[in-house]
Amino acid sequence: MATNRAQIFGRFAAVCLILLCFACLHVTALKSQLTPLLQRRLLRYSSEPPIRYETFYFDQKIDHFGFLEDGTFKQRYLVADKHWQQPDGPILFYTGNEGDITWFCNNTGFMWEVVEELGAMLVFAEHRYYGESLPFGQDSYSDSKHLNYLTSEQALADFAVLIQNLKETLPWAQHSPVIAIGGSYGGMLSAWLRMKYPNVVVGALAASAPIWQFPGMVPCGDFHKIVTQDFARSGSNCDANIRRSWEAINNVSSTASGLQWLSEEFSLCSPLKNKIDVIIFKNWLQETWVNMAMVDYPYEASFLQPLPRWPIQVVCKYLGFDSTVPEYQLLHGVSQAAKVYYNYTGSSSCLNTSQTATSSLGALGWTYQACTEMVMPMCTNGVQDMFEPEEWNFQAFSDECNAMFGIRPRADWAGTVYGGKEITSHSNIIFSNGGLDPWSAGGVTHNISDSLVSIMIPDGAHHLDLRYSNNLDPPSVRTARALELKYFREWIKQARETTEAAVTKNRKLQTSA
Amino acid sequence: MATNRAQIFGRFAAVCLILLCFACLHVTALKSQLTPLLQRRLLRYSSEPPIRYETFYFDQKIDHFGFLEDGTFKQRYLVADKHWQQPDGPILFYTGNEGDITWFCNNTGFMWEVVEELGAMLVFAEHRYYGESLPFGQDSYSDSKHLNYLTSEQALADFAVLIQNLKETLPWAQHSPVIAIGGSYGGMLSAWLRMKYPNVVVGALAASAPIWQFPGMVPCGDFHKIVTQDFARSGSNCDANIRRSWEAINNVSSTASGLQWLSEEFSLCSPLKNKIDVIIFKNWLQETWVNMAMVDYPYEASFLQPLPRWPIQVVCKYLGFDSTVPEYQLLHGVSQAAKVYYNYTGSSSCLNTSQTATSSLGALGWTYQACTEMVMPMCTNGVQDMFEPEEWNFQAFSDECNAMFGIRPRADWAGTVYGGKEITSHSNIIFSNGGLDPWSAGGVTHNISDSLVSIMIPDGAHHLDLRYSNNLDPPSVRTARALELKYFREWIKQARETTEAAVTKNRKLQTSA
Repeated sequence: MATNRAQIFGRFAAVCLILLCFACLHVTALKSQLTPLLQRRLLRYSSEPPIRYETFYFDQKIDHFGFLEDGTFKQRYLVADKHWQQPDGPILFYTGNEGDITWFCNNTGFMWEVVEELGAMLVFAEHRYYGESLPFGQDSYSDSKHLNYLTSEQALADFAVLIQNLKETLPWAQHSPVIAIGGSYGGMLSAWLRMKYPNVVVGALAASAPIWQFPGMVPCGDFHKIVTQDFARSGSNCDANIRRSWEAINNVSSTASGLQWLSEEFSLCSPLKNKIDVIIFKNWLQETWVNMAMVDYPYEASFLQPLPRWPIQVVCKYLGFDSTVPEYQLLHGVSQAAKVYYNYTGSSSCLNTSQTATSSLGALGWTYQACTEMVMPMCTNGVQDMFEPEEWNFQAFSDECNAMFGIRPRADWAGTVYGGKEITSHSNIIFSNGGLDPWSAGGVTHNISDSLVSIMIPDGAHHLDLRYSNNLDPPSVRTARALELKYFREWIKQARETTEAAVTKNRKLQTSA
Repeated sequence: MATNRAQIFGRFAAVCLILLCFACLHVTALKSQLTPLLQRRLLRYSSEPPIRYETFYFDQKIDHFGFLEDGTFKQRYLVADKHWQQPDGPILFYTGNEGDITWFCNNTGFMWEVVEELGAMLVFAEHRYYGESLPFGQDSYSDSKHLNYLTSEQALADFAVLIQNLKETLPWAQHSPVIAIGGSYGGMLSAWLRMKYPNVVVGALAASAPIWQFPGMVPCGDFHKIVTQDFARSGSNCDANIRRSWEAINNVSSTASGLQWLSEEFSLCSPLKNKIDVIIFKNWLQETWVNMAMVDYPYEASFLQPLPRWPIQVVCKYLGFDSTVPEYQLLHGVSQAAKVYYNYTGSSSCLNTSQTATSSLGALGWTYQACTEMVMPMCTNGVQDMFEPEEWNFQAFSDECNAMFGIRPRADWAGTVYGGKEITSHSNIIFSNGGLDPWSAGGVTHNISDSLVSIMIPDGAHHLDLRYSNNLDPPSVRTARALELKYFREWIKQARETTEAAVTKNRKLQTSA
C-alpha cells in the first residue's frame, strides 16, 4: 500500500515538476537572472540610460465570460514609449505568462533591441493571478472558488480588452498595429491571441511555444527524448550514465548506510530517510537535467541558476565513465554534475530537493493551470530517453489534481478551443523553436502556410531568440531574429495598407452618400 | 415623477421589444408557423415521406470557461443522416438560436432541400437555456446565478465540443467537413463559430445576421429607417400616416372617452386606462410594424402570424389617406392595418397588447442576453423614420437590466470578442441579407474579401433564403440559394484537398522516419 501510494505520488510529482518547468523557468528562476542581466545590459549600453518604463494598472473584469461576478481587479502593465513614432507607430505587446511581469520586461531583450528601429511602443501586460495582478488580492489562491477565473481564455480576454482600451484612449494609437510577443506559455498566449482576437493583434511571435503539447497531438515521450539527445551530444556516455544512475540510486538507497552516503555525497540539506524521499530525490534530479536542457545557452548565463557556457558540456565532463564504473563512483559523478547546476558559483552550502517552484505563487498558479486546461502529457521509456520508464496516466494525474484543488483537468478542451493541429486558416504567426529545447517537441516546427511560419534555431535552447543578443550567439539565432523583424515589418505594412484602404473607402462612401 | 418613470419604462420596453424581435421571430412565432409549413411541405413532397430526424442528448459542461462548476446538462440535438454519403460526407450543422431546436429544424427548408445533392448529414443543435437544453432544469431561469452560463461564448463552445465529439465518435465522420448554418442570432453564431473555431467548421452561412448591430458600429437609427422604407414603398402615404398616428394616439388618449374609443376601435382585450397603458400600446404598435417588415414575404406565410402575400402592401391599403384626414379616421385605418397582422384569419376575438414573447422562456432568455452581451442600440428620430423620436440611452437600459436581473450589460464586449468591423482575417463566411429586412442594417452587406462574401437579396425579408423554396420566390433569393450552394461545394472541396494533403504528408513523414 505504501509503495502504491508512493508510486502515485511519484508519478504526480514527476508530471508536476515537468509541467512546472514553465513556472520554474519564469518564476523562481528569473529572480536570479534579473541582476546579472541588468549588469550585462548596463555594460553593453554603458553610454545609454538603462531601460525605462512606466507602470500602470487597468481595471479588468474578473469574469469576462459571465455577468454575475461583476467585480474588477487591477491588471498591471508596463509601458515604454520613448521611441514610439506618433501617429500610429506600432505597439509590441508582451503577453505575460505565469510570473511577475517586470521579470519578463527585464528579460525580453529582443523587444528592447528592436524598439527604436521600429519606432514602436512596448507594452508588457501581466497575466492575471501572477505578480501584482491578483483578482482577489491575497485571497486569490485561497480555494478553487477564488481560482476559478485563472484560465488562459480569461487572460487572453484581459489582453484583448487592454489593447482595445489603449488604442481608444492613447492619443495617436487608434491605428497602431499591435504585434503580440511571448515566450513559452507566454508564446502560446501570443499565438492564441492572434488566433482568437485577430481584430486586436496583426501578428504574433510565439517563441518556444508548445501549442501541440496536448493530448493526442504529439508523442508523450518526445520531450524527454530531446533532453536525452542534448546530453548525448554533449559528452561521451553522458546520457548512458544518467540512464544507469537511477538503478544505482535504487540499489544504493536500499540500505540505511546507502541513504546516508547519498545524502552526504549530494550535500542534501535534508538527508534522505525513506522510499518517498528517494522518489522525490530522483524526480528532483530528473527535473535538473530537464532544466539544463532548457537553458543550454552558448554563453554564461543566469536563468534558472548561474551557469557556465554550454552547461551540459560542463556537466558531461563528470559523466564520461564507461559501463564498468562502480555505482558509487557513477553517483559521485552525478553529484558533481548536479552541483554544476546548483552550485556553479560555490555559494550553496547544501542542495535542497524541495527546491522547485511549487512553493511560489507563480508555480502554484501554473500547477492549477496544468490541473485544468494545460494538460500536457509526458512519458519516458528509458530506451529512447535516459529516464526511468513512466507512462502517462491521465486518471492518476486527474485524481491528484482533484485532491489538491477539488477540480479535474479537461484533457480535450485545449485542443478544441485552440484548434490543435487544425490551425491552417489562421495567419501572421511566427513559431520559433530551439533545436535543443525539449519544449520544441510540442512546438510548430514546420511551415503551415505562407503566414504561419516556423523558424528553427538548431543551436538554441528555450526561446533564445527573445534574449538579449550576445557575441557568442550562434548564427542561427541571429538569422532568426532578423527574420522575425522582417515579418514584423511586413505585418505592420499590411496593417497600414488595410487601414488606408478602409479610410479611403469610408471617404468614398461619405462623398457618394 | 410618474411621467419620468413611465418614460423610462417606455424606453426600456421599446428597446426590449425591438431586441426581442429575434425571440419573437423564433420563439412565439414559430409555434404558429410549424403546422402550416408542415402542411405545405407535405403538399409539396406528397410523394415523399415527411422529414425525419433522430433526437439525441449530449452531456455538455455547464461552464466551459471555469472548472469550479463541473456539472453537465443534456444538450439536445437532432440528426438526419438518410442522405449522408459515407465516408466523410459533409455535415450541415445548424447553430441553434434562442428557441426550441425542433422549430428551427422544421423551418430551415433550405437545408432539407440541399441535403441530398450534397450527400450531407444534417445536425440541428439546440442553444443552451432554450427548448429542452436547460443547464439547471426548471431552475435555469430562477435567478442570475443560474442564468450565469447563458452566453454566446458558452453556446459556441457547446457547438464546438459537440462537433468534435460527433467527428470522433461517428463512424466515417472523422474527415467530414462541417458547415455552420444559422439565421438571425443563429446566423451570428454561425459566423462566430467559424471565426472562433475554424478548426471545427470549414465555413458558415450567416443568414440575416446583424453582427454589426452593436455600439459604435452602425447608426442606431438605420434599423427603423428600413422598416419605414418598407412601408413607404408599399403604398401611397403609408409611412406618413403611421408617423402621424403617434400624435393622434396621444391626442385621442388624453381624455377618458378617447381611451375608451381607442380600446374599442382596436378591439383590445384589456382597455387602456392610463398613460403607461398608452406607452405600452404605442410600443406594441411599433413592434407590430417592425415585425411586419421582418416577415414581408412574397407569399402567404405564417411566421409571426398568419399573413397574406406581401403583407405590408395589404396593410398600406388601410393607410392611404392624405394629410387632411381627421385623427379618428386615421386611427381607424391604423386599427384595420394592425388587424391584418393580428387577425388575418379572423379567429382573434380581441387584441392583446402584452402579446409579446416576454412571457415565454425563449424571450426571457433573449432579454437576459440583450441585457448582458447582446447590446444592440436602436433609436428613432421621427424624420427619417415613421416612429416617435427616441434616443438610445445606454444608462437607462443598463439600469432596467440591473433592476430585472441584477446584472449590467457590457456595451463593448461583443465588439472586442467578435471583432466588430475588423474581421478581414477570417475566411469562408457568407453573410446573406434581405433588402427588406431591418436587421440588414446591422449586417455585412458588402464583400469583405474573396471568402467573406455578402449576398444581397433586395426583395427578401428576414432570412428568406433559409426558408423552403416557393413558386413565388423572387429571382434574387433563388440566385442567393444557388450561390450559397456553390460556396458550400467550394468549401467542401477545399477541406477535402487539405485533408488529403495532410494524409499524404503524414504518410511521407512515416515513410521517411
